[in-house]
Amino acid sequence: MVISQTSERGRRRRGRSADAAPPPSRDVNYRQLKNPFPQMEVFPAEHIADMHETALRTLQKLGVKVLLPEARRLFAAGGARVDEDSEMVFIGREIVDAAVASAPKSILCRAGARHRDFTLELGSLVFQPGAGAPNATDLERGRRPATGQDYLEFLKLTHHFDVFQMISPQVEPQDVPTHLRHYFTTQAQMELTDKFPFFFSRGTPQVMDCFEMLSTARGLSDDEFRGNAHCYTIINTNSPRTLDIPMAQGLIDFARHGQMSIITPFTLMGAMAPITVAGAITLSHAEALAALTLTQLANPGAPVCYGTFTSNVDMKSGAPAFGTPSHFQASLAAGQLARHLGLPWRSAAGSASNINDVQAANENQFGLWGCLMAGASVVIHSAGWLEGGLTVSFEKLICDAEVLNMVAELCAGAQAGTAEIGFDTALREVEPSGHFFASSQTMERYNTEFYQPHVHDYANFGTWTERGSVDANHRATAVWKQILDEFKAPPTNSDRLGALQDLIARRTSEGGAPPES
Amino acid sequence: MVISQTSERGRRRRGRSADAAPPPSRDVNYRQLKNPFPQMEVFPAEHIADMHETALRTLQKLGVKVLLPEARRLFAAGGARVDEDSEMVFIGREIVDAAVASAPKSILCRAGARHRDFTLELGSLVFQPGAGAPNATDLERGRRPATGQDYLEFLKLTHHFDVFQMISPQVEPQDVPTHLRHYFTTQAQMELTDKFPFFFSRGTPQVMDCFEMLSTARGLSDDEFRGNAHCYTIINTNSPRTLDIPMAQGLIDFARHGQMSIITPFTLMGAMAPITVAGAITLSHAEALAALTLTQLANPGAPVCYGTFTSNVDMKSGAPAFGTPSHFQASLAAGQLARHLGLPWRSAAGSASNINDVQAANENQFGLWGCLMAGASVVIHSAGWLEGGLTVSFEKLICDAEVLNMVAELCAGAQAGTAEIGFDTALREVEPSGHFFASSQTMERYNTEFYQPHVHDYANFGTWTERGSVDANHRATAVWKQILDEFKAPPTNSDRLGALQDLIARRTSEGGAPPES
Repeated sequence: MVISQTSERGRRRRGRSADAAPPPSRDVNYRQLKNPFPQMEVFPAEHIADMHETALRTLQKLGVKVLLPEARRLFAAGGARVDEDSEMVFIGREIVDAAVASAPKSILCRAGARHRDFTLELGSLVFQPGAGAPNATDLERGRRPATGQDYLEFLKLTHHFDVFQMISPQVEPQDVPTHLRHYFTTQAQMELTDKFPFFFSRGTPQVMDCFEMLSTARGLSDDEFRGNAHCYTIINTNSPRTLDIPMAQGLIDFARHGQMSIITPFTLMGAMAPITVAGAITLSHAEALAALTLTQLANPGAPVCYGTFTSNVDMKSGAPAFGTPSHFQASLAAGQLARHLGLPWRSAAGSASNINDVQAANENQFGLWGCLMAGASVVIHSAGWLEGGLTVSFEKLICDAEVLNMVAELCAGAQAGTAEIGFDTALREVEPSGHFFASSQTMERYNTEFYQPHVHDYANFGTWTERGSVDANHRATAVWKQILDEFKAPPTNSDRLGALQDLIARRTSEGGAPPES
Repeated sequence: MVISQTSERGRRRRGRSADAAPPPSRDVNYRQLKNPFPQMEVFPAEHIADMHETALRTLQKLGVKVLLPEARRLFAAGGARVDEDSEMVFIGREIVDAAVASAPKSILCRAGARHRDFTLELGSLVFQPGAGAPNATDLERGRRPATGQDYLEFLKLTHHFDVFQMISPQVEPQDVPTHLRHYFTTQAQMELTDKFPFFFSRGTPQVMDCFEMLSTARGLSDDEFRGNAHCYTIINTNSPRTLDIPMAQGLIDFARHGQMSIITPFTLMGAMAPITVAGAITLSHAEALAALTLTQLANPGAPVCYGTFTSNVDMKSGAPAFGTPSHFQASLAAGQLARHLGLPWRSAAGSASNINDVQAANENQFGLWGCLMAGASVVIHSAGWLEGGLTVSFEKLICDAEVLNMVAELCAGAQAGTAEIGFDTALREVEPSGHFFASSQTMERYNTEFYQPHVHDYANFGTWTERGSVDANHRATAVWKQILDEFKAPPTNSDRLGALQDLIARRTSEGGAPPES
């Protein structure tokens, strides 16, 4: 303890303080963050305008293939030219302009408890862990197809860290049958966390089930449910220029019920998108605008989050790469386009590494800074994501959460008033070659001034060696196990959860709801 | 090869191009970088002004202890009040103002070859690897007290990566006697690299030796040598408020010969500096101004680089921490003060981790982004630094160089003209659900569009497993070994190097020059 090195005066001072009340420990709100980083532009404004114009031209002249007949009908009713034979939809710019105008600039996201609510808009900053992986991995159990247990454990870890404001579908619980899986994941989200939940768009029957389960568990009337965003889905277009059936259904269903779609063309430069950042983001922008337009045609004013997830492939192997300079620049370009529209938007970090190693850390953080400097409102895959999304790692989630916590600390800022500059309480108190362990300013702040890490270790080499030379990856194993051991679910309403269980039992007995494909 | 997936058209196109000339490979200049990142402010401008005022008040009212009599004489001659008994120097603000006014805003750093020259000023971006460590470590040979061989190997690695524009004193060659060590390190720098060299300030005799060796090896007349910065030293003040004998001598010697001092109070918040970012940086600023003033009193207009290296200690253990939110904020505050002065400045990344693990990667990169967003002209310890500076790691240097290369790629920017947006050469060529592997735009750019990593691996899990499941750390071992195996020194002038060897032999036979302490 440094404090044991304090001078007599310092000890007395601390003694007094200890008599009165224990010194406060650090408490920073990570639940509602504002992005404090200056926003970076990769292209001049006139080129961003060119990209927007080219996207509009792409939608009007080249069109988008829309596989769902109902979606084509909505586009046609909105004034788009539709070729039913080819399923192509050609969307005029005035239709897109109207949709951008009616999309809300600010979205209140209502969680299961008021202190978990947050607002999505340009300037807000929300994180969620890696999502959608078929596999889970950790150092004790190895890499395996993810199970329901993995899903529950990741959900608990996500709940634990305040810096994850949204729940993500971290892994697929592959041992749960697909026609019942949405019951499992929804029940878990209602019982184990009060954070903002996620539902897949795998067809209208499943989505309607999820809405009903959520309303039941959270005690929401139909009007209350429709009055705000209480949950979200992620909509990936099929690049290039295709919107498939479950995605189009999801856009329509979520919009009609006032729930939030996060639209994400997942475009890999050089593969399913042009090889340039400018070309790939122009395509992504066109696809995002098409999807966004569908939400507003279904329900003007429906909450919708613009987005992209664009990185490059390795042209030697065709393999996806993440956390690259091109990924970073793509985030910046998407941010400029989102600001051009004035809409909240999502981007993504991520890693191509196969394990939680130095590559995984460096790629994830590099991509993260791209998102932060691009002004992303939501950063998806910000923790735990490996193999370009094929696996979520328990240890990586813990290690990445450390970085996100430190970013959240930067959101809180610092002060430089008279008390902090401390001419009288620090600078003048200490003689040349002295130390500040016992200065008045230190005594007031030693317990609260600095972020306390959960996995980073500051022990010197000798101490660290004596303790077994455990690297951050293996320390992270101990961290996630402790969090799971000590996990307590937030307060819930047992009547409502009982009703939820009854609802799930009834639907299950009726045969569940298979996913749309 | 992705290219094998190209269509007939694509293959023909590539075939034609191959007949004419091989496609160009990517070539980006990493040697002269401009910082492309928007600069972040942690404190409002009026509080930065308060910090500057408080630093001036600290210098005038509290004073600085200056152990070197000659330095005290220079301060006294410049108008400072000096108390010889206490060795305290009280520096009035007009003296500091004059020094800041005469310090150059832009410093041309002349390396051993013109394409290695760079300019230090606000807006430029220069990296150097971890410096000053007593130990070296790698996965094959383990952690050990560094030797001459380690010094030479790190020098070769530093030379290899263009993104290191400056040579740093990575490790101490502890098997070389201290009175001869500067001959060893200077000869190595003159023979193995043409980058901008470093000399320690360990007393006037060693520094004069180094200047003579450099002039001999690079064929510089006395006027040519003094006419530009051809080398640099790092000056650490002894915080709080002390300037020791070798550091003060170094400031005077480098200034009188027109060579560059990089001034770096190394201040740990809560230990040798106030616990707050504002207090610690105010102290650091005061000390940097005192040292900078001494250079200008010794030789007005002498090249001097403002700087800081400020992080926090862990208040539970007293151990130094790096890559923390407070470290990040300290860089931001120092950048604001440097811009207040208008001077080029240095900051630092770094890690407290004991090995090249995920913590080491995340801390180093987190600290790096603090430096980048703070607008640091020079980022020291940007690669390889472990244990808060007690060790430099071969593998970490390789892994961090990957991140720095990616930052350098961001410095190069991206384009979004008609060719890059590619409506005709990409977007229109590919039908819905098609791919861009063979689009005209891809064919033109597949070999040059993306950064190619040296240690990051994009292989999928199956391939990576077949190849032995080698993590980035162990892949880095293979990378540094290959670089060393294939190392070729840049062209040198054998007559001059012969003269350098003669000079070193003569000085060695005369007994060398022991360091000042």
